[in-house]
Amino acid sequence: MRDVAASTVRRLSLYLQFLDECERERLETVSSGALAERGGASPAQVRKDLSFFGSFGRRGVGYSVPLLAGRLREILGLVRRYRVILVGAGRIGAALAAYPGFRSRGFDVVAVYDADPARVGTTVDGLVVRDGARLEADLAAEPADIAVIATPARAAQDVADRLTAAGVRALLNFAPVALNAPPTVVVSDVNMALELEALSYALHHGRA
Amino acid sequence: MRDVAASTVRRLSLYLQFLDECERERLETVSSGALAERGGASPAQVRKDLSFFGSFGRRGVGYSVPLLAGRLREILGLVRRYRVILVGAGRIGAALAAYPGFRSRGFDVVAVYDADPARVGTTVDGLVVRDGARLEADLAAEPADIAVIATPARAAQDVADRLTAAGVRALLNFAPVALNAPPTVVVSDVNMALELEALSYALHHGRA
Repeated sequence: MRDVAASTVRRLSLYLQFLDECERERLETVSSGALAERGGASPAQVRKDLSFFGSFGRRGVGYSVPLLAGRLREILGLVRRYRVILVGAGRIGAALAAYPGFRSRGFDVVAVYDADPARVGTTVDGLVVRDGARLEADLAAEPADIAVIATPARAAQDVADRLTAAGVRALLNFAPVALNAPPTVVVSDVNMALELEALSYALHHGRA
Repeated sequence: MRDVAASTVRRLSLYLQFLDECERERLETVSSGALAERGGASPAQVRKDLSFFGSFGRRGVGYSVPLLAGRLREILGLVRRYRVILVGAGRIGAALAAYPGFRSRGFDVVAVYDADPARVGTTVDGLVVRDGARLEADLAAEPADIAVIATPARAAQDVADRLTAAGVRALLNFAPVALNAPPTVVVSDVNMALELEALSYALHHGRA
């Protein structure tokens, strides 16, 4: 497999979300034009993206929905399950633990941690919140693939350092801070405040 | 004001989130080193980012928290209020309508729309859900600055086209689709599925 740009991975995700809908509607085939519209790309870009991973389409017929969806799930690594731990059991953390999109993508939340003694021992989506001090010991016994960081901003870097030292290779960060991580660790950020402020900045300065 | 890169705007947002915390703790000054840690930048980058907008720091003392926070709010356009409409009153839309981060940034959700007759007339966070067919008429009478799109993916582009034709200049998109919009319109996307799949892709292909 050649190296694939992050922007390509994002388009593949968008194509797959569209194919998921097609499957629910029991559509058999889909055109590159329809895929292009959802991925924000040209039909030529779609054909290029997909040919990169093998040939799925038939001229004049389009792409087979189940074949292409299956292949995209493979490419995106959605054919296996991932062990996920959640650090931070506050409002965002609790909402995330219940997010159905985790499980449907094969992401199993197996443990929830918090540093606040008032939260330790309470239950979040069926999981008893554990003391954050146990992170290293638990990860040594039962490694996790992905950690979701939903701590206050000031705690996030320290938590990220402890997680990566304990062998976690992927972080999904909800704290409003740019995390530093070794190059062997992948970090995705979700920060709605940043998106909102990008809009207000553009409106305020007449960019929009 | 010179043109500012989107990455700079994101760092300014991260600095401001840090300054907000400092204000809550009644700290008077902050160092470029502390700001750098939160913005994922070097202290030199922080000084460069901030000097771009005027001089705020004093050598050996650091930056005045209230002065710098005030100036960043100005730069980011957070000193005025924005009229926001929300299109799509499903699970995500309802959660967003209640999101306190909107109001605290001066974003007032003034109307909620849905195309589903079963939802029209119900109440979401104190607002009666309006029929989506009224969008154009309502916007003509009372323009909005920002529209939040929380519709199913298949409806999102059509909604975006109607909103931009009706004069909305900023879109915050939660639908899993890449929206096409005129260059005069700014679009921010929030799509957690994409972030999750970027992680599973990296893990699956040994990038992490």
